[in-house]
Amino acid sequence: MNAEIIAVGSELLLGQIANTNAQFISRNLAEIGVNVFYHTTVGDNPERLEKAIKHAQTRVDTIIFSGGLGPTKDDLTKETIAKVLGLNLIEDELALVRIRDYFKKVNRAMTDNNRKQAHVLEGSTVFPNDNGMAPGMSVTVDQITYLLLPGPPKEMKPMFDSYVRPFLLNQLHEQTVITSKILHFFGIGEAQLETELEDLIDKQTNPTIAPLASDGEVVIRLTAKAETVENAQALMVETEKEIFARVGDYFYGYDDTSLFHELVKLLKDRSITVASAESLTGGFFGESLTNEKGASTVFSGGMITYSNEAKMNLLGVEESTLIQHGAVSEETAREMAQKVRERYQSNIGISFTGVAGPAEQEGKPVGTVFIGLADAHLTEVHALTLAGSRHSIRLRSVKYGAYYLLKKLLG
Amino acid sequence: MNAEIIAVGSELLLGQIANTNAQFISRNLAEIGVNVFYHTTVGDNPERLEKAIKHAQTRVDTIIFSGGLGPTKDDLTKETIAKVLGLNLIEDELALVRIRDYFKKVNRAMTDNNRKQAHVLEGSTVFPNDNGMAPGMSVTVDQITYLLLPGPPKEMKPMFDSYVRPFLLNQLHEQTVITSKILHFFGIGEAQLETELEDLIDKQTNPTIAPLASDGEVVIRLTAKAETVENAQALMVETEKEIFARVGDYFYGYDDTSLFHELVKLLKDRSITVASAESLTGGFFGESLTNEKGASTVFSGGMITYSNEAKMNLLGVEESTLIQHGAVSEETAREMAQKVRERYQSNIGISFTGVAGPAEQEGKPVGTVFIGLADAHLTEVHALTLAGSRHSIRLRSVKYGAYYLLKKLLG
Repeated sequence: MNAEIIAVGSELLLGQIANTNAQFISRNLAEIGVNVFYHTTVGDNPERLEKAIKHAQTRVDTIIFSGGLGPTKDDLTKETIAKVLGLNLIEDELALVRIRDYFKKVNRAMTDNNRKQAHVLEGSTVFPNDNGMAPGMSVTVDQITYLLLPGPPKEMKPMFDSYVRPFLLNQLHEQTVITSKILHFFGIGEAQLETELEDLIDKQTNPTIAPLASDGEVVIRLTAKAETVENAQALMVETEKEIFARVGDYFYGYDDTSLFHELVKLLKDRSITVASAESLTGGFFGESLTNEKGASTVFSGGMITYSNEAKMNLLGVEESTLIQHGAVSEETAREMAQKVRERYQSNIGISFTGVAGPAEQEGKPVGTVFIGLADAHLTEVHALTLAGSRHSIRLRSVKYGAYYLLKKLLG
Repeated sequence: MNAEIIAVGSELLLGQIANTNAQFISRNLAEIGVNVFYHTTVGDNPERLEKAIKHAQTRVDTIIFSGGLGPTKDDLTKETIAKVLGLNLIEDELALVRIRDYFKKVNRAMTDNNRKQAHVLEGSTVFPNDNGMAPGMSVTVDQITYLLLPGPPKEMKPMFDSYVRPFLLNQLHEQTVITSKILHFFGIGEAQLETELEDLIDKQTNPTIAPLASDGEVVIRLTAKAETVENAQALMVETEKEIFARVGDYFYGYDDTSLFHELVKLLKDRSITVASAESLTGGFFGESLTNEKGASTVFSGGMITYSNEAKMNLLGVEESTLIQHGAVSEETAREMAQKVRERYQSNIGISFTGVAGPAEQEGKPVGTVFIGLADAHLTEVHALTLAGSRHSIRLRSVKYGAYYLLKKLLG
């Protein structure tokens, strides 16, 4: 299977957005053993799109389109492919029901141009869109497979994971299985992790070991090839042991997870409740925790005490502490964690105070952060010095908070 | 000038990185009036690169390459272009001096393969690389211009700004300027907005009107072409008036802005303080507000009252209200907004209560949201029915909160 990805959208050619869809699809295709030979981007221009399709037909056997399935006049991917292949567009009952339901749910009138989104190529396999209206589809004509996906990443990515990936694996009819496993690390930089594992990364070919950094975290993707899933997984076990022997202290979870996902799971398992007192993070910790389903059973709530007045009057931090040590201090973090724990009658209190920038505060430089963790017996405070933008300092603060809390719970 | 951007690099086809170079180059070309018709990505494969070059020659007059100028065996862009055009590669004195200087500076021995980077296409204009070793270059053969740029963004971008942009402007021999303006809307769907503006979008050619949706918002990009910036802007004014007459109610800002950016700016201008009481959004509103610089002067703080206990004990919502109407109700939203305003002694209180999902709550369906806004005289409550994922419901809730608050302040 040799593929070309054709992204359709003038916003790409104008440079308004980057073609992250091509990256996502390519990475996923590489994992299941599909070669990607070309990426092409064309604007919302049916003549040029038609030429791009005809050219792709001469060089690959799988053409994956992203974008141009929406309700507006600009959206012409389906119509152009239908023309090139001499296929009709027919209304898909199920897709239409989903679109009607959507409008009923949001209590808005369905305009006529939305109906266009329920049209699919005749004879195609239709992929439901669980996060939007335009369905995806696949049709094979003259040994070439045409796969149409919506443009918005938040619709395309889940559709790919749930429907397209299994569909392609089925089509591959191959005995080689490629399996991947992702290991998540926190508290170690990419360069340091790579230095620790350098010889392993260099000598390994099956599984391969690929470190990747993003948002203050590092993941390692192990990818093994074998005749069965079991054999591929067995190959990974040995490599994993070696990795854990060196950097296991920083490991926190496998595959599709996150620090907050692991944290909520663990809190639920142990029936432990948490309350938060946030200063520099302004609600970011609470937001991240409650973004996880079922957080209500473990999150008692929180206080966002941005000002000293709120720290004193609402949370109950002593005025003397603020005067003597300042709002950005170990002592204030300690009291904030203890007080919010009492206020919300929860098992654990967590607090964040620090300087997110752009300017220094109380003579403390940007990036100074204190995180407090209090239970009934003990209060610990972690001091951090973080570099980066305001957003990055806030993001890594809440991640460190989740990480310290996880480590505390795991002993 | 009609251009195609050819990115060269297997790491792009494997999805290891996104093609942000194409975005950067496209945005810059749009600004100076060069049409970009296609993006193409090929791997480090000379046969496929050769075919891509020959195909591009049939459809554009300017081909811009990024990547493949480095020292390794994989880097074959120059060599392949030289072959296709029948040109020799010659050593560029200045480039060689710069490479030698670089190695002297970092105190490392210069290996032979680095010398390859000083080779340029005969007859080309050479662009110095101020942030790396491989120079860029441009050569015109048979009326087609070939422009070669290095792959690493930190080398390519400054080279483009310093040398390529002036070079292209010179080549254009034209007085045409292209100017863009972005209008931000909230509270209206992309399809509805397009329906309202359909005739305008269809008949307009200068400026063009392009709607684009993301994260529950819609932006319209106006792009005008004229002999001077002033004339281009004048062309946009008339179109803008027409757009505002139809959908001006949903407009909130220009160009690089966001709802929260506008909100913090307005609150600061008027010296108005806000406090938040958040249930389903769990701190998301506070996080979004404090993500803006200088929010500390207008955000008194907030309470995250996820549970009924916290709503009663910490915020002061009446037990009878929760029993009679439930936590997800207009009445609870009203009291939450009023109480948090009192607690934090701020000018305005804003509250969020609702069902983010995945399960319904108190018999109210997922997506039911109430947003309260209280000042000293009046409390208003907005009821919403939102569709989508848990994240999307929470995100749009806080955006609606910011939007209602903006509208309240603007009268």
